[in-house]
Amino acid sequence: MQARLFTDRAAHHYAHAIGQHAPDIPLWTLDDPDAVHADVAISWLPPSGAYGGLPNLRLIHSIGAGVNHILAEQSGGDVPLCRIVDPEQARIMAHYVVWGVLHFHRGMDRLLQAQREQRWLQFAHRPAEQTVVGVMGMGVMGRTVAASIANLGFDVRGWSRGGCEIANVRPFSENEFDAFLDGLDMIVCLLPLTASTRGILSTKLFAKLNRGACLIHVGRGDHLVAADLHAALDEGQLGGALLDVFAREPLPADDPLWTHDKVIVTPHIAAISTSATVAEQIVANVRSLRAGDALNNVVQRERGY
Amino acid sequence: MQARLFTDRAAHHYAHAIGQHAPDIPLWTLDDPDAVHADVAISWLPPSGAYGGLPNLRLIHSIGAGVNHILAEQSGGDVPLCRIVDPEQARIMAHYVVWGVLHFHRGMDRLLQAQREQRWLQFAHRPAEQTVVGVMGMGVMGRTVAASIANLGFDVRGWSRGGCEIANVRPFSENEFDAFLDGLDMIVCLLPLTASTRGILSTKLFAKLNRGACLIHVGRGDHLVAADLHAALDEGQLGGALLDVFAREPLPADDPLWTHDKVIVTPHIAAISTSATVAEQIVANVRSLRAGDALNNVVQRERGY
Repeated sequence: MQARLFTDRAAHHYAHAIGQHAPDIPLWTLDDPDAVHADVAISWLPPSGAYGGLPNLRLIHSIGAGVNHILAEQSGGDVPLCRIVDPEQARIMAHYVVWGVLHFHRGMDRLLQAQREQRWLQFAHRPAEQTVVGVMGMGVMGRTVAASIANLGFDVRGWSRGGCEIANVRPFSENEFDAFLDGLDMIVCLLPLTASTRGILSTKLFAKLNRGACLIHVGRGDHLVAADLHAALDEGQLGGALLDVFAREPLPADDPLWTHDKVIVTPHIAAISTSATVAEQIVANVRSLRAGDALNNVVQRERGY
Repeated sequence: MQARLFTDRAAHHYAHAIGQHAPDIPLWTLDDPDAVHADVAISWLPPSGAYGGLPNLRLIHSIGAGVNHILAEQSGGDVPLCRIVDPEQARIMAHYVVWGVLHFHRGMDRLLQAQREQRWLQFAHRPAEQTVVGVMGMGVMGRTVAASIANLGFDVRGWSRGGCEIANVRPFSENEFDAFLDGLDMIVCLLPLTASTRGILSTKLFAKLNRGACLIHVGRGDHLVAADLHAALDEGQLGGALLDVFAREPLPADDPLWTHDKVIVTPHIAAISTSATVAEQIVANVRSLRAGDALNNVVQRERGY
């Protein structure tokens, strides 16, 4: 018997789109008595022990690009895990980051503040080609983002395990991290969340950037040490931060990031996949599993993405 | 005798850069007794009658892309008039407009407002390829701006007298103005200020755009009928406006645009030329004049640009 299972509410959000793409595939939720027969679990934030009572489980599919919550759920064992890789989502992400880069580059934060004070405040900005932007993480998203920024004439660097080959983007490998950071005016975090990247956005990292550098954080909340960000902003080492991801989401109403005048908070909207794309990729992998074909976008569990 | 004259303070700002490029050219200001010998006037906002007492005048050179204040000064007669055309300035302009397009497209205005209220406000946005952006004026600036927006995946239209040929930008000629406006989600004004474009940003034009459309105005202040903009914003026909130019600059402190919650005011900083570029182009034209060669970027006075 073949059936698919939604382990949580966020994943269940895609039931309608998956049903439209593949009406022949039965869909259950975790509390359904038939759930025990499921061979595929569709997940985002699986509850503790979600995969424990599923003897037929052969595939876990994330509904997004990230898989950290799924990897953290031990009951998944070493069942194959796939994620969404969506070039359209990468373009949406690139738009968000381009907005942020131009916002800081042209001092739009200062201009919006000047408007509130009804002040006609003119100032010069550094030419784009003398402004160095570093992109951490060069997957599909990172590469698209880096190319878009380079396209506007900025001096762009990319840092990743594997290195990267993109026109007008200077590649830095894993062990060239300090050289990558040295001289950056802006840093964009697009890393996956793994044991080695957790807390990477810290005082130690900020201190290696140019004074007054800006942070654009669209990775995962736990990449950032929030206390270190506050210290770097207040001390002037960082000039501003655009944050789309947080350790707790929604960001609690009393979090001081909301009201910090050098911080822009957006509600995890930097990149969204359309449900049609998510459904299409999940259904394609379910059909490959049935046919015995290779799966797309399989996560290397030990690597974390 | 050969000499150059600065007719106003803004133009005089470039004296140092011109002196560096061409130490052999004498430079005077209008109140200098020798000014009467000048054969070239370098101008931005010439005082009334500025060109009247200059029998040797053979060239008037604007220090910028715009020439409306110079054309308005009747004492210039039909002396050849040149302006600055700067591709680097066009790129700086394109950055500003791209920031504005993404700002409105992604609802950053709503997100910044939500942050002030400490609200986690998620909403969807229309795909870029279904968002129609119209660029009015397809000179060097307009073409660069249109290409940059098209490059990000938006559906871009260009309107100009002469038509234009740019990849992924749909051209509309002068008499296709209504077809150009119909269905626009955003409109960018990059027109020169002439008798036929003065007041073009009016109720009549706004009514032809999609409801909730946004305006990015980087032309000249007198293109815009400010009362019509207020009415369109307050009534909801326009969803927002990013304005860099104003009928009076600096924008007076009591102007209601400063505090309108759907208006972003910036202080005429969308595009700036470096003084080196301005000096270079002026000196090249002065040398061409001396050599009897053709001048660059000559304004057609009857056309207005």
